[in-house]
Amino acid sequence: MQKAIIVGASGYTGAELARILTLHPHFELKGLYVSTNSADANKPISLLYPQLKQIVDLQLQPLPENLTDLAKSADTVFLATAHEVSHDLALIFLENSCKVFDLSGAYRVNKAEFYTEFYGFEHKFPQLLDLAAYGLAEWNFEQIKQTDLVAVAGCYPTVSQLSLKPLIENDLLDLNQLPIINAVSGVSGAGRKASLTSSFCEVSLNAYGVFNHRHQPEIATHLGTEVIFTPHLGNFKRGILATITAKLQRGVTNEQIKSAYQQYYADKPLVRVYEQGLPSIKAVEFTPYCDIGFATKNGHIIIVGAEDNLLKGAASQAVQCANIRYGFNETAGLI
Amino acid sequence: MQKAIIVGASGYTGAELARILTLHPHFELKGLYVSTNSADANKPISLLYPQLKQIVDLQLQPLPENLTDLAKSADTVFLATAHEVSHDLALIFLENSCKVFDLSGAYRVNKAEFYTEFYGFEHKFPQLLDLAAYGLAEWNFEQIKQTDLVAVAGCYPTVSQLSLKPLIENDLLDLNQLPIINAVSGVSGAGRKASLTSSFCEVSLNAYGVFNHRHQPEIATHLGTEVIFTPHLGNFKRGILATITAKLQRGVTNEQIKSAYQQYYADKPLVRVYEQGLPSIKAVEFTPYCDIGFATKNGHIIIVGAEDNLLKGAASQAVQCANIRYGFNETAGLI
Amino acid sequence: MQKAIIVGASGYTGAELARILTLHPHFELKGLYVSTNSADANKPISLLYPQLKQIVDLQLQPLPENLTDLAKSADTVFLATAHEVSHDLALIFLENSCKVFDLSGAYRVNKAEFYTEFYGFEHKFPQLLDLAAYGLAEWNFEQIKQTDLVAVAGCYPTVSQLSLKPLIENDLLDLNQLPIINAVSGVSGAGRKASLTSSFCEVSLNAYGVFNHRHQPEIATHLGTEVIFTPHLGNFKRGILATITAKLQRGVTNEQIKSAYQQYYADKPLVRVYEQGLPSIKAVEFTPYCDIGFATKNGHIIIVGAEDNLLKGAASQAVQCANIRYGFNETAGLI
Amino acid sequence: MQKAIIVGASGYTGAELARILTLHPHFELKGLYVSTNSADANKPISLLYPQLKQIVDLQLQPLPENLTDLAKSADTVFLATAHEVSHDLALIFLENSCKVFDLSGAYRVNKAEFYTEFYGFEHKFPQLLDLAAYGLAEWNFEQIKQTDLVAVAGCYPTVSQLSLKPLIENDLLDLNQLPIINAVSGVSGAGRKASLTSSFCEVSLNAYGVFNHRHQPEIATHLGTEVIFTPHLGNFKRGILATITAKLQRGVTNEQIKSAYQQYYADKPLVRVYEQGLPSIKAVEFTPYCDIGFATKNGHIIIVGAEDNLLKGAASQAVQCANIRYGFNETAGLI
Repeated sequence: MQKAIIVGASGYTGAELARILTLHPHFELKGLYVSTNSADANKPISLLYPQLKQIVDLQLQPLPENLTDLAKSADTVFLATAHEVSHDLALIFLENSCKVFDLSGAYRVNKAEFYTEFYGFEHKFPQLLDLAAYGLAEWNFEQIKQTDLVAVAGCYPTVSQLSLKPLIENDLLDLNQLPIINAVSGVSGAGRKASLTSSFCEVSLNAYGVFNHRHQPEIATHLGTEVIFTPHLGNFKRGILATITAKLQRGVTNEQIKSAYQQYYADKPLVRVYEQGLPSIKAVEFTPYCDIGFATKNGHIIIVGAEDNLLKGAASQAVQCANIRYGFNETAGLI
Repeated sequence: MQKAIIVGASGYTGAELARILTLHPHFELKGLYVSTNSADANKPISLLYPQLKQIVDLQLQPLPENLTDLAKSADTVFLATAHEVSHDLALIFLENSCKVFDLSGAYRVNKAEFYTEFYGFEHKFPQLLDLAAYGLAEWNFEQIKQTDLVAVAGCYPTVSQLSLKPLIENDLLDLNQLPIINAVSGVSGAGRKASLTSSFCEVSLNAYGVFNHRHQPEIATHLGTEVIFTPHLGNFKRGILATITAKLQRGVTNEQIKSAYQQYYADKPLVRVYEQGLPSIKAVEFTPYCDIGFATKNGHIIIVGAEDNLLKGAASQAVQCANIRYGFNETAGLI
Repeated sequence: MQKAIIVGASGYTGAELARILTLHPHFELKGLYVSTNSADANKPISLLYPQLKQIVDLQLQPLPENLTDLAKSADTVFLATAHEVSHDLALIFLENSCKVFDLSGAYRVNKAEFYTEFYGFEHKFPQLLDLAAYGLAEWNFEQIKQTDLVAVAGCYPTVSQLSLKPLIENDLLDLNQLPIINAVSGVSGAGRKASLTSSFCEVSLNAYGVFNHRHQPEIATHLGTEVIFTPHLGNFKRGILATITAKLQRGVTNEQIKSAYQQYYADKPLVRVYEQGLPSIKAVEFTPYCDIGFATKNGHIIIVGAEDNLLKGAASQAVQCANIRYGFNETAGLI
Repeated sequence: MQKAIIVGASGYTGAELARILTLHPHFELKGLYVSTNSADANKPISLLYPQLKQIVDLQLQPLPENLTDLAKSADTVFLATAHEVSHDLALIFLENSCKVFDLSGAYRVNKAEFYTEFYGFEHKFPQLLDLAAYGLAEWNFEQIKQTDLVAVAGCYPTVSQLSLKPLIENDLLDLNQLPIINAVSGVSGAGRKASLTSSFCEVSLNAYGVFNHRHQPEIATHLGTEVIFTPHLGNFKRGILATITAKLQRGVTNEQIKSAYQQYYADKPLVRVYEQGLPSIKAVEFTPYCDIGFATKNGHIIIVGAEDNLLKGAASQAVQCANIRYGFNETAGLI
């Protein structure tokens, strides 16, 4: 059993990690940590998440001053923390031989200037950026397997890339016209916090961060091509539906498209490609899958991808990466 | 045209008042005020409530230091403010000949000690408590007509009392068994604010304030009898459904019950008593009505009452009281 | 007062029409009709829609055999009926000097073969197609004013065209790249009926009718240019949000775009163009407005349009067209 | 591995059973059956429930004419069928040595006349009524262990009885005043079917079946005391919240109440009694637990119970009963 801890365990993603790791056959969840001055410190996690009562019986502890001792006590750490916090914490855990799975954006792109531009902080650990594997599990198996720092892919980027990469890799899209990604996320994507924007009576359906969302450059960088990405907030708790419109290369057939998806996902247990029909939020909520379907007409393709933003878009993909890293079954603890 | 202003116009109730008064045939809305240090000061109200664009074209102004001048400029003031604020403001407006319609709890019960016990502040204006009429429009027509201070009834108390009073007045209930009021409110009842409790992902369906909600003594005092009142928060934006269970006096018939409701509500345009079926939230949301239906069996009655908490439970009842006070048609501006 | 009747009054659109016409200053609602064998025949409409109790006190009557007498009794008829039914009924009412406002698709495109291809029936009244004005109120004022048959624009087509037409008319878009319309509709768009697809537990968020929805050719025909239109069903009752992505002509500025919207909508009371921010469903639900906002970057534009599908997308636009036809204030009965 | 089949597998409860039994360590799911003329016959279950793709890879088969062969092929059958169908099928499976877990109401009360009165059919198998154990798992362990026919308790009755029984058994309630059960259920309680009542736009929050719901006599019979039971339909998919108000015997203390719950549930893994706070729907949805909390004042108690109606109120309790019957860990396959 690998000893795991979670830092940032009071958030929605942290709570999902706590549940998964508690029930996981190869991990032993040793501790849940929150920031030192968190109002949730020293509360049992089931006070915040009553659904975890009798399932996860641990307290949220304030991060100790002496992180070295904490790091030494664990084999694996999941960082469900803010970007700046992950940026600072990763090194300490790595230096003490932990494997680190970071769910923030702090190590997802191997260009220090990316963080100055899109995250507003100066990245101080270029050597860790070199070390980090991008945790898009279906595409970076080998890199994930060989590193101790995995930067788990973002929620929107996961579904967007899983939907587009097979077609781009096989050169089936005419990228002179930018792929258009319209995605709608449940409110949990905004995190667990008091905020007017995510208060019940204010939530409706609206676009936000138009031409100006951090996940756009993450997607574009890892796809290797520009895209137009328009996120929306919808009136549901969890899940992302991405509707992607793109132009096909001249003459591309549905068979070629199917075959591209087959080629990359036939042996990937957590991507479900639809033979017919299209995914919906209800197909994926509370599951670790990313579902993909498509339709074509007159040289255009519409791809619909769906995932649970807290699972395949965060917690379950983090554990999937950990499973890969340790050589466990990729779906261990997830289905 | 009566000149009206709203203090506390940035909240959900304030915005409903703004819409109603703008469209009202006999009021002219002269100003929207928020507390001096509100972050919303100097914003157009339609920035907070885009649905009001081109309907209410006023800015939210910070309350001026010189309230006397403000009071002199208006005939009527609606206070959609916190209890303590209403407590303090009412006198100033009254002294300057305004008619005051207060939507807070500050003047609803004519016992100073009530506020110490249930609201946690010392009431300094017993003379105003004497002056105030309780704004349960269908029951206090004459008092409302003759005073300049109306303490508009609370959201839960309105639907609870409208449902129970005809039966209690006609002595149809066996009050040795306390009437049980189970009510479910939409989240707007908690007001417009950032709060974890009313954030989208936290809202579910749950009881709160059990045996410990301020509206219980308001209901009991005005009904003149104890009740058990259990409020719930539900996953919808607006509306209250109250399911009330009570014991009937021996031998009471359905005809007597119908006839009691008829007696009090036949000429009341904003209470709809059901001949058959029972009210639901959808019957009343966005309407100024309180709907009432009932069923009986084996000496017990179940009454279901429904209203829009922001309208009949707040803003539209305030305007209904104002209509009564000025001798306008009771439904002017409301239907 | 013009005497109006509604055929197809039991549906969601019919009920909205009934409410609007009852409160309208220049129309007198004389009758609500449903198909002869409807299970709702002879019920008061408030039994189906309790929110209409005491507001609309009419029964749903079965359509009489003798339509001529019915037509002679009315000045104006609103057809909220299925395409085939509207197709058949329009002539009878027109021959008896009624003004006809048809909310179905039966007369929206002046090409008989359009109906064979997209609606699956043979259109028998090409002379009525010539007569009909397309009821996109902001754009066809003169035609609507001069005809007795208005084919009120569809829900998706209204918001899509209102969003795109000013830019297309002013040649600001590079139409070599097809505009991409991603729209999400509330479930009321599917009509009032028992159906598994629109049952509460089945509704989620999903695309449907991809590359295959009747509103695509309606939009394309009236815009005069092809578009890619992807409708979605969302978990809310009413409203449509359309997110439209298009390529701008080289060098087009935000000022030119604003100015195009100003040019067409500055004097149109029911289109609200946003100076800042973008529309959401909550801004338009229960209102007769279409709201439009936009953002641009790198030669692309994202336009967000929103409307209440039952109002600006159906009932209120029908009444707006009727107001125009009769020379009433365009917003009479609507605000 | 016990060979299990599900009859009535296309409904919401059937699908939950399919998922649970597929992942269960001691059952092998051998077949999913629907009625012979079902439109869903011969479809993969994942076509109806896309979330089950790659998890449950079975087709829905029409029930064969020769039920004997089917019965012989299985060890265990779960009947998620209508009352009349379960009534007829149970015997055939029992005669062929199957253990039968019936989720309908056909065998829940051991009085033939009960079915004539409340279910409208004549019960033909009084000997099976004698055989049947009432599947309220926490209370009838011994009976369940020793029979081959378990009538799994209904959704409302499960949460109602689990909340009330410890207090009634320990004589803590003054039953001269009837306990009042107000419960709100998610829409899945109505089953998977096209129906106007459960269509998305019609669902709101309303009481139904007032003084007239089949679960009232089921509750009263098994509690051994009358209750007033008022079910409501709420705008959510799954879960039941029951708010129960009762009078305490004179002098009863909170300690006695706690201790009564402890006495019965301390060793019951699927009932969670709250030390503080009260349950909500979100605490139990997608879980096999029944959660219970309470508050007291002035001789009255309010108990709040919550469960997932499809799990503890149906599928997971059925499997819990099967676990008990076979001597497996009571929570096997459930957590």
